[in-house]
Amino acid sequence: MNTHSIKAYGTVSATQPLQEMDINRRAVLAHDVELEILYCGICHSDLHSIHNDWGGTTYPIVPGHEILGRVTKIGEHVKNFKIEELVGVGCIVDSCGHCEYCEDGIEQFCDEGVTFSFNSPDKISGGMTYGGFAKTYVCNEKYVVHMPEFKDLAAAASLLCAGITVYSPLKHWGAAPGKKIGILGIGGLGHLAIKIAKAMGAEVIVFTTSPSKVEDAKRLGADEAVLSSDAEAMAKYNRKLHFIIDTVSAKHDVNTYLNLLRHDGTVVMVGLPVEPLEISAFDVVHGRRSFAGSNIGGIAETQEMLDFCFEHNITAESEIINIQDVNTAFDRLEKGDVKYRFVIDMASLKN
Amino acid sequence: MNTHSIKAYGTVSATQPLQEMDINRRAVLAHDVELEILYCGICHSDLHSIHNDWGGTTYPIVPGHEILGRVTKIGEHVKNFKIEELVGVGCIVDSCGHCEYCEDGIEQFCDEGVTFSFNSPDKISGGMTYGGFAKTYVCNEKYVVHMPEFKDLAAAASLLCAGITVYSPLKHWGAAPGKKIGILGIGGLGHLAIKIAKAMGAEVIVFTTSPSKVEDAKRLGADEAVLSSDAEAMAKYNRKLHFIIDTVSAKHDVNTYLNLLRHDGTVVMVGLPVEPLEISAFDVVHGRRSFAGSNIGGIAETQEMLDFCFEHNITAESEIINIQDVNTAFDRLEKGDVKYRFVIDMASLKN
Repeated sequence: MNTHSIKAYGTVSATQPLQEMDINRRAVLAHDVELEILYCGICHSDLHSIHNDWGGTTYPIVPGHEILGRVTKIGEHVKNFKIEELVGVGCIVDSCGHCEYCEDGIEQFCDEGVTFSFNSPDKISGGMTYGGFAKTYVCNEKYVVHMPEFKDLAAAASLLCAGITVYSPLKHWGAAPGKKIGILGIGGLGHLAIKIAKAMGAEVIVFTTSPSKVEDAKRLGADEAVLSSDAEAMAKYNRKLHFIIDTVSAKHDVNTYLNLLRHDGTVVMVGLPVEPLEISAFDVVHGRRSFAGSNIGGIAETQEMLDFCFEHNITAESEIINIQDVNTAFDRLEKGDVKYRFVIDMASLKN
Repeated sequence: MNTHSIKAYGTVSATQPLQEMDINRRAVLAHDVELEILYCGICHSDLHSIHNDWGGTTYPIVPGHEILGRVTKIGEHVKNFKIEELVGVGCIVDSCGHCEYCEDGIEQFCDEGVTFSFNSPDKISGGMTYGGFAKTYVCNEKYVVHMPEFKDLAAAASLLCAGITVYSPLKHWGAAPGKKIGILGIGGLGHLAIKIAKAMGAEVIVFTTSPSKVEDAKRLGADEAVLSSDAEAMAKYNRKLHFIIDTVSAKHDVNTYLNLLRHDGTVVMVGLPVEPLEISAFDVVHGRRSFAGSNIGGIAETQEMLDFCFEHNITAESEIINIQDVNTAFDRLEKGDVKYRFVIDMASLKN
């Protein structure tokens, strides 16, 4: 298969910093779109992947799956995209296309497993996929979305993973006027969950361990923000919430939050703690409650989310960095020192 | 309040066997029904309660909440029951009656907490409730159900807790033709879940750790029975089941079963393991799966379940014992040595 070399930023082991490297991108096939990457968001799962926290990392790895760019080339059969158009690529860049899940537009659950935008075996090139910390990206147009003309384009990049990760469960579990929704944790995911849930018309209560984030949650639009260490404030919400989006990616106590749910309510996990979470049977049996999970979203839903966020003027609170500062950014991300999302200005990666 | 003394079987501490004792029942109030108890089922939660496994046991305790009898007295305002009628009393004998849950017929989630048929503070008499290991029972008619004329009446007693505990989630999560449902564990709950799910038209796959129960599961109506230690047989069901009723009341691995679910599937816990269960976020996030619980059912649903079981000729496989053998029965229950439910013939308790 024809490939060409491009500049990227990646690492060769779990313990080494990211550095500039050359990688090969496949040539544009008949159904492919090539984009020049303008911005790429940094997600907590980039950090987990480069450190091999979940196992399964193949080195060298080039992370990045919140990829925003401009189309530079299209294959001869591409129908939905044209040169110069603003586009996005998120987590998924291939799936079987014919299982019931793919046919239902929930490719994220593809029976044969999806190809992720980085660190996945690429069924077409035969190698591994390399992510968006790079000059360009190439994939089938089915996995590319149209990017609305956000005023702050850089701040829209993070919608491609963080945005869809919270939009999909908010919609699935029915965020709407009259619904009281909890958001657990205010980081990259949580702060977008507040904005999107409010735009959907729900009442939003935020739960945080950080006193410094209480006021910030309200600034972001939350109706209430509760310190989870404040037992009295917590008790006010016993059996009051329709569902909770749990964005915490470290081991934590879920049972306390199950007890804030009304009957038939759900704590929806969107973080991926490495250690299992301890759930008491009593806390789900009482009230017929659920502990559930949600994983990004399908391509059609990602497009729907982008259009929704554009209409409601929602982007991520973003700190724009140069690629040369990416290791510092990962260090800060690990400490939770970012409000609320890093985005790399890919112009800083020179050819 | 007027009370009168009756014979019962109970215990005065967690470590002593059950013995004959005298307890007081309240006199029949205007809305009360008194029944002479013919049969009382033995449930695993009776065992947990007498041993104080869950905490909260007040001694002396008289267990029993699968209470089947014949009406011997009715209060002056009782509308729905008459003398000599066959009736049942299950787990719930009082609730606030005015919260949204009570109004919606899901009294089991009453905002003020329900009064259980034993070991609960009785809001009316002021003491604790004593269960069905006794000559008679008295409660408000709202918590009494009409007992159809089952051919094997003794075997119908266990429907009042075990039956509704599995009927309610089977109905809530949609057991029906075209649905593939897993039943985890074949005991008092599991064997009724097989029968009821089949009567609802679902395809039923049973998972058990006991080779001896594989054939029995099929005899009870299961389409397939899988030994959970047989990895190859288990793998056949990866992502195949719509939901699973988990009846196991000891600590166990739930993640294996989450992986047998289709997307949006649910493992529904109806057992009450004392220790928390470890759930991996990955196993719920992938496939948007849930780990949920379900707790008995409301009174109206209990009546619906009895009528359904009568129509489909469903009762529990029961071993009928005399009250004098109850301690042996509890010992055997603790070892899982019962197929599948003990029922006490209360005629053996002489006045």
